[in-house]
Amino acid sequence: MKKVVLAYSGGLDTSCAIKWLQDKGYDVIAFIADVGQGEDFGAIKERALKTGASKVHVVDLKKEFVQDYILPAVKAGAIYEGKYLLATALSRPLIAKHQVRIAHEEKATAIAHGCTGKGNDQVRFEVTAQILDPKLEIIAPVRIWEFKSREQEIDYAAKKNIPVSVTKKSPYSIDINLYGRSIECGVLEDPWTEPPEEIYYFTKDPLAAPNTPKYIELEFEKGIPTKIDGKSYAPSNILETLNKIGGENGVGRVDAIENRLVGIKSREIYENPAGTIIYIAHKELESLVLDRETLHEKEAISQKYANLTYYGLWETPVKKQLDAYIEETQKTVTGVVRLKLFKGNCAVVGRKSPYSRYSEKLATYGAKDTFDQSYAEGFIRLWSMPFQGGKNV
Amino acid sequence: MKKVVLAYSGGLDTSCAIKWLQDKGYDVIAFIADVGQGEDFGAIKERALKTGASKVHVVDLKKEFVQDYILPAVKAGAIYEGKYLLATALSRPLIAKHQVRIAHEEKATAIAHGCTGKGNDQVRFEVTAQILDPKLEIIAPVRIWEFKSREQEIDYAAKKNIPVSVTKKSPYSIDINLYGRSIECGVLEDPWTEPPEEIYYFTKDPLAAPNTPKYIELEFEKGIPTKIDGKSYAPSNILETLNKIGGENGVGRVDAIENRLVGIKSREIYENPAGTIIYIAHKELESLVLDRETLHEKEAISQKYANLTYYGLWETPVKKQLDAYIEETQKTVTGVVRLKLFKGNCAVVGRKSPYSRYSEKLATYGAKDTFDQSYAEGFIRLWSMPFQGGKNV
Amino acid sequence: MKKVVLAYSGGLDTSCAIKWLQDKGYDVIAFIADVGQGEDFGAIKERALKTGASKVHVVDLKKEFVQDYILPAVKAGAIYEGKYLLATALSRPLIAKHQVRIAHEEKATAIAHGCTGKGNDQVRFEVTAQILDPKLEIIAPVRIWEFKSREQEIDYAAKKNIPVSVTKKSPYSIDINLYGRSIECGVLEDPWTEPPEEIYYFTKDPLAAPNTPKYIELEFEKGIPTKIDGKSYAPSNILETLNKIGGENGVGRVDAIENRLVGIKSREIYENPAGTIIYIAHKELESLVLDRETLHEKEAISQKYANLTYYGLWETPVKKQLDAYIEETQKTVTGVVRLKLFKGNCAVVGRKSPYSRYSEKLATYGAKDTFDQSYAEGFIRLWSMPFQGGKNV
Amino acid sequence: MKKVVLAYSGGLDTSCAIKWLQDKGYDVIAFIADVGQGEDFGAIKERALKTGASKVHVVDLKKEFVQDYILPAVKAGAIYEGKYLLATALSRPLIAKHQVRIAHEEKATAIAHGCTGKGNDQVRFEVTAQILDPKLEIIAPVRIWEFKSREQEIDYAAKKNIPVSVTKKSPYSIDINLYGRSIECGVLEDPWTEPPEEIYYFTKDPLAAPNTPKYIELEFEKGIPTKIDGKSYAPSNILETLNKIGGENGVGRVDAIENRLVGIKSREIYENPAGTIIYIAHKELESLVLDRETLHEKEAISQKYANLTYYGLWETPVKKQLDAYIEETQKTVTGVVRLKLFKGNCAVVGRKSPYSRYSEKLATYGAKDTFDQSYAEGFIRLWSMPFQGGKNV
Repeated sequence: MKKVVLAYSGGLDTSCAIKWLQDKGYDVIAFIADVGQGEDFGAIKERALKTGASKVHVVDLKKEFVQDYILPAVKAGAIYEGKYLLATALSRPLIAKHQVRIAHEEKATAIAHGCTGKGNDQVRFEVTAQILDPKLEIIAPVRIWEFKSREQEIDYAAKKNIPVSVTKKSPYSIDINLYGRSIECGVLEDPWTEPPEEIYYFTKDPLAAPNTPKYIELEFEKGIPTKIDGKSYAPSNILETLNKIGGENGVGRVDAIENRLVGIKSREIYENPAGTIIYIAHKELESLVLDRETLHEKEAISQKYANLTYYGLWETPVKKQLDAYIEETQKTVTGVVRLKLFKGNCAVVGRKSPYSRYSEKLATYGAKDTFDQSYAEGFIRLWSMPFQGGKNV
Repeated sequence: MKKVVLAYSGGLDTSCAIKWLQDKGYDVIAFIADVGQGEDFGAIKERALKTGASKVHVVDLKKEFVQDYILPAVKAGAIYEGKYLLATALSRPLIAKHQVRIAHEEKATAIAHGCTGKGNDQVRFEVTAQILDPKLEIIAPVRIWEFKSREQEIDYAAKKNIPVSVTKKSPYSIDINLYGRSIECGVLEDPWTEPPEEIYYFTKDPLAAPNTPKYIELEFEKGIPTKIDGKSYAPSNILETLNKIGGENGVGRVDAIENRLVGIKSREIYENPAGTIIYIAHKELESLVLDRETLHEKEAISQKYANLTYYGLWETPVKKQLDAYIEETQKTVTGVVRLKLFKGNCAVVGRKSPYSRYSEKLATYGAKDTFDQSYAEGFIRLWSMPFQGGKNV
Repeated sequence: MKKVVLAYSGGLDTSCAIKWLQDKGYDVIAFIADVGQGEDFGAIKERALKTGASKVHVVDLKKEFVQDYILPAVKAGAIYEGKYLLATALSRPLIAKHQVRIAHEEKATAIAHGCTGKGNDQVRFEVTAQILDPKLEIIAPVRIWEFKSREQEIDYAAKKNIPVSVTKKSPYSIDINLYGRSIECGVLEDPWTEPPEEIYYFTKDPLAAPNTPKYIELEFEKGIPTKIDGKSYAPSNILETLNKIGGENGVGRVDAIENRLVGIKSREIYENPAGTIIYIAHKELESLVLDRETLHEKEAISQKYANLTYYGLWETPVKKQLDAYIEETQKTVTGVVRLKLFKGNCAVVGRKSPYSRYSEKLATYGAKDTFDQSYAEGFIRLWSMPFQGGKNV
Repeated sequence: MKKVVLAYSGGLDTSCAIKWLQDKGYDVIAFIADVGQGEDFGAIKERALKTGASKVHVVDLKKEFVQDYILPAVKAGAIYEGKYLLATALSRPLIAKHQVRIAHEEKATAIAHGCTGKGNDQVRFEVTAQILDPKLEIIAPVRIWEFKSREQEIDYAAKKNIPVSVTKKSPYSIDINLYGRSIECGVLEDPWTEPPEEIYYFTKDPLAAPNTPKYIELEFEKGIPTKIDGKSYAPSNILETLNKIGGENGVGRVDAIENRLVGIKSREIYENPAGTIIYIAHKELESLVLDRETLHEKEAISQKYANLTYYGLWETPVKKQLDAYIEETQKTVTGVVRLKLFKGNCAVVGRKSPYSRYSEKLATYGAKDTFDQSYAEGFIRLWSMPFQGGKNV
């Protein structure tokens, strides 16, 4: 009997997928990945077994997720289309990698996922798997099965005795992990409609946030956040702590019209208190320690990094090449950034570093000035030279 | 007697420059440019004449500034190093252009400005002038004169009977025009120090801003802001109105470590309520109406446009070439963006356009779905193809 | 009866496609596009009718091809992966555009082409058609029909009385038009094998080319080649003439490993005598008349233009945007380039222009020197400034 | 007495500089760098001492030049403005680095070079030195001394008993090292004039080159050329051997209008037989082993690398960052390229690699075909999706 490893979430789609794959003649092994979504994995495992999975793997990927996926993205300054910090996009290649690993361990010949055919996640899962093992069959039940609506799926679940959560289905499609939370569907599908307050989970409404600003000092070592207000934290605890502080102050809400890889625009809401704070502080520290040419070039590389992550190309050579570049840029990204969180704002109010390239002696207009102004004329003359000597038309 | 046209601000530096240029044997014609800095130009003119200018030109450049400098930058989405909307940088080539024009009209052989040798403005003035008329002599008194300190300048002013404002000198260096305000020097020269509240003029402290959000609807036509809440405004009135609304809600403060063209880093504070609101809304509208390839490519062009503006290259062929590109991208940037201003935040909460490329029918997971999911597999297979068939090492 | 407009070449594939589409219930209208491939269009039309086409359109697209496709690519300096001048890639969107036009005129509901499923041309045809009229059905018989081999196709042709050329099938797959010729398949599929001499048609073997160099002077006006050795030609005659002169001297052969859009690498041989000469001369003239910043920026735009052309995105907004940019760069690309063709070489040996930015007075080390060397020190000091003042690690 | 380390070539300029620096009160230490220019260093050393140098350092930098400067540029595919392989540009930071080292060893407080104020080399020398030791005084005698012409310099030399070579001064300015040779000045200053045959040294006139092609197989390991026709060579011997073979066949001549960093255009002739062959072969091998995304991205990085090298920024963080990127791309650039050299041509005729990403099974139109064409439709549909659903205007 052919074995398939299914990435299982415990929801209706992947639960139906267990039975549907069995109908097609597969022995279904469920794989539950913990990337910090904070669910009851014991209950989910139970449901998988009850539904018919022959075996269940629950794997805690949180540490690897932070170390090998989130932190590289932080160092890269990766943000898709200037808005999306890529929380879900980063988790997919990690989950797919372990899915392939489990398939090899279990001698399965196929893997399966519950993604629809119009999103980015299917691409991220499948591209990763195809690169890591092109021989594995990939099955996307939701894309090909016969159910035309949620109702038909529910009927199928009932008929097959699939245990489905009785709570009313949220109108929203939500993904959550250590690095952030995304919300889509429902009323959000109208881009003119303001997101209702009910969709948020990590962040307090800025209107209801504290009336006094919260100052924090975030410290980085070689591009990695290490301390808050002088106290050391493990990377995943930094995320947790900043999610709490930032969320409390309404920081990290994003409302975006986004271009999916599959060619459509979607409306997405994101909540990333920690991600937002770290992104802002990291960029600020870089502005202090990196020279102009590095900063301007890295800007372009950041975009490419975000695009490749969004486009599911995490396991490609390009990713490794850009990582090598980025790693080299982070050698001096060590220092402290002081931030003021207030009712949705995250403003930088100070920054310092042992590698600072800011020189008060050069910058000042005061008595300490050491800048030799006589250099300016020659500089300007040659700077404008290429635009003379021809006819501008 | 050789004539020089001096860009005159009425401050100590350019006042001393009048006498100093006369000492060097020049007939000094003062040129006062109104780019919306909101000063008493009659008084400034008076001071120029009293100090010894043989003639004074006061020219209202506000309309041209908006039309030919600010709006192209808006369409370009120009923002230097992700922070600076380029208010001062945009005004310099305009002032220099008119300075050259007046030099021609007055048959002057030289122009002069009051910029120091360590800033960007000298470059913007001189590059513009050198491109427009390479034969004009350019004099930068502040860069070459004998005064070693502000005190020596004041002594010189006293000796030469130069009327100097008696008010205590602000510790800050400030530039202001229709598009924004910049503040540097004083305590700001320490990048770890939070800017004191006293430096702000356009914007209310977010802590003191209204406790209820202000919603506005900003309408664009072909990339240009035309209406607020359905009411038409001339472009300069849009700026004025948004400066007021935005400032009232604490929107548009920026604290930056910036890379000057002359090779040093400086700490700059900006206030741009109107600029910030327009920038955010314009970008949002573009995300709705422009296709993915255009958006991603324009991102790179925006950076180049900001850089060339910052670097004083406004009068170069590159600027015209990028304008041609940008103009073509703006043909469909027509629509309305709804914004929520609140204690320093400017959040987009809605957007709509007759040219919208967002299709609810394609995006929805609901019953109206028209996206054919069967296309996905083939797409993904070919998308990952380039990364197979070789050895990844 | 549903009508389909088939892009017909007269070969085995599209001839079988006529019958196959009829089998599927379509009324087949054949469309034969003349893009300079130099075939007997009367005979091809005859064959289409004999095979069963209900109607045949033969359309001479040569002028439009040169004006709206080749010349824009020349101005753009478009060359894919540094090797391919895009002759076939440029012709596809033109043919598809007229195919859609004819479909509309004939009230056809479908269009069809004879491309395989592993090449770039299918993408170029279909993307163009989908943009111009998303409602048209697109049929790619070769991609979906039941024939597993050329032999099965020939059997089908025999059974259906399809008139097939009796000459022995060339082992090569060849495309030819005004701008160039491409050859693939056969022994060329081994990238270690040197292309045999028999595959070339436009170009003489460099070993057999004349023993004395051929000098020509090619003149451009605003980026467009207009004269050879002082004599004016219509654009298509320039191509024809340069193909002859260049081919005679063995100029324009290219041997490439190329990355197809569909994700595979292929080995391609190109012959472009005229294209190569024009590309080299145009680039050289640009180096004389364009300033450094324009040249460096245009280099990046050229690559994007080549990519979008190769990727079938000719009818997209991005193409129009880049055209606007490029058009602006070409205003001064007027002048003459002198070339030396010799046994496969095309070397520039001289260039001149009324818009030249080369100034002998500035460049010379001789007596006429007008360059003020005193500017250099200041320039260098500020040029290196960003890299000082920090710790390089 | 203050010590200065002068980069000494033995020519008129640097010989006069020894005396001139002594006149200014310096103890002059001459530094002669051997970067493969193939001169009589004993005689040059003698001349330095006779002219008045208190000490002379002759340092063989050839191995370091190849290892740390030429090979990184080869891996980067660095070529400035598509024409210049950067031979001289690469040597300057190396010489400057050793000049600074010697200054430190000799406890000198200054360094000096013989470059003019209108070239690129002064920038490369000084930027390197300013980054490595900002405290060192830099003196550029040629830029600031009183001699207005070559004649005045010769008079000065006579008066000061400076031994000057009696051979007639070449009208050309020439630089030569292991990686190539550059020629400027004289009749070359007219960009319409064809370079006379007399200027070439490495390369035979293509007209006089052998009538039969020379085939060679060049092998690379991780981006570095290691074998010719199966025989291993040390890197510097590869250069020597290919210079001989290539030169014999007229390969490697370049005629360029080039944009100097100091803002002027110059006309440059280059001879790089080895450099040209290696550049072409390396790029070809990359096209076989690198995936499409890597190739397209590396194209942009190559340009940046060439620019920074040309602009004198070799010792900056950007250079190290790009090196890290490039190094990662070269891991699979191992294989053989077959080339056909003939009367100035260098044509690729074959390439193979254990890391080849070319798959005949996927590329073939023959019986071995394994490409699943059914994927194409889905791919194309989603590929064109972003350009539908809006109004194209």
